[in-house]
Amino acid sequence: MIIFGIDPGSRVTGYGIVACEGARVGHVDNGVIVPSASLSSAVKLHFIHSELIKILSHFKPDVVAVEEVFVANNPRSALVLGQARGVALAAAAACGIPVVEYSTRLVKQSLVGYGNASKEQIQSMVKRLLKLPQVAASDASDALAVAITHAHSHRLQIRTNLL
Amino acid sequence: MIIFGIDPGSRVTGYGIVACEGARVGHVDNGVIVPSASLSSAVKLHFIHSELIKILSHFKPDVVAVEEVFVANNPRSALVLGQARGVALAAAAACGIPVVEYSTRLVKQSLVGYGNASKEQIQSMVKRLLKLPQVAASDASDALAVAITHAHSHRLQIRTNLL
Repeated sequence: MIIFGIDPGSRVTGYGIVACEGARVGHVDNGVIVPSASLSSAVKLHFIHSELIKILSHFKPDVVAVEEVFVANNPRSALVLGQARGVALAAAAACGIPVVEYSTRLVKQSLVGYGNASKEQIQSMVKRLLKLPQVAASDASDALAVAITHAHSHRLQIRTNLL
Repeated sequence: MIIFGIDPGSRVTGYGIVACEGARVGHVDNGVIVPSASLSSAVKLHFIHSELIKILSHFKPDVVAVEEVFVANNPRSALVLGQARGVALAAAAACGIPVVEYSTRLVKQSLVGYGNASKEQIQSMVKRLLKLPQVAASDASDALAVAITHAHSHRLQIRTNLL
């Protein structure tokens, strides 16, 4: 199973792709989509949407995993983040790929074992689990983390079904 | 000039198209895009995006006008609205159409003459200005209102340039 994690953002959208077979989770690719800062919001959003469609079409994942958004107390940032998240979700649906969502807390628990893990702990665990030569870019690492969370959760579900 | 107004929303996205020539603003079309409530968020967003692209490709407007969002004090709604707004902006950019934004206050001022006009006053003024046989659906009426605002603002700009 190929899992495609996305960490949407208006300035930087990270993505991370893992393949899992049974208990093994391997790294496939990761990267960031960075629209030029000089573009208008609409063109940036279109860029994120069309780049994601290109990458999704190339890797043909079985599922897209995104973090449920931690809605901070700033409605303005929630709106801007929502715009990027909207085009990311639409890109997955445009490719006919189902989307699963995991809370930030669950991602942290799944990777490090507790829900208050720091960003650095997540990055270092992503690097270790996927045997990466170096820590991935912050947004790509977050995308890999949510993809790994789905791999773990999916394995648990399969196990539960077998019991 | 053909102006395409959009009032994005996750449940209902309204659109309204007007044509303007000099001081005259005429109604072209209006409607609403309503994804089935049973669909996932991602598929709803893709539906809004692809329907808008179809309609934009059909009417080939010169410009897309949207309201700047009044960010309420609820970050959760801001996020959900942001997602719909994101795909609407991306759809305009996908068609290569520039996007202009107007504050709610300016839309109300432009149509009714003061910034605190009620929704009903706006709807009734849209109906009157465009000589519609009946009041358009609420979201379509809001989309027509922002399109008319751009027509008024554009005319003022042309006048200013001529002075």
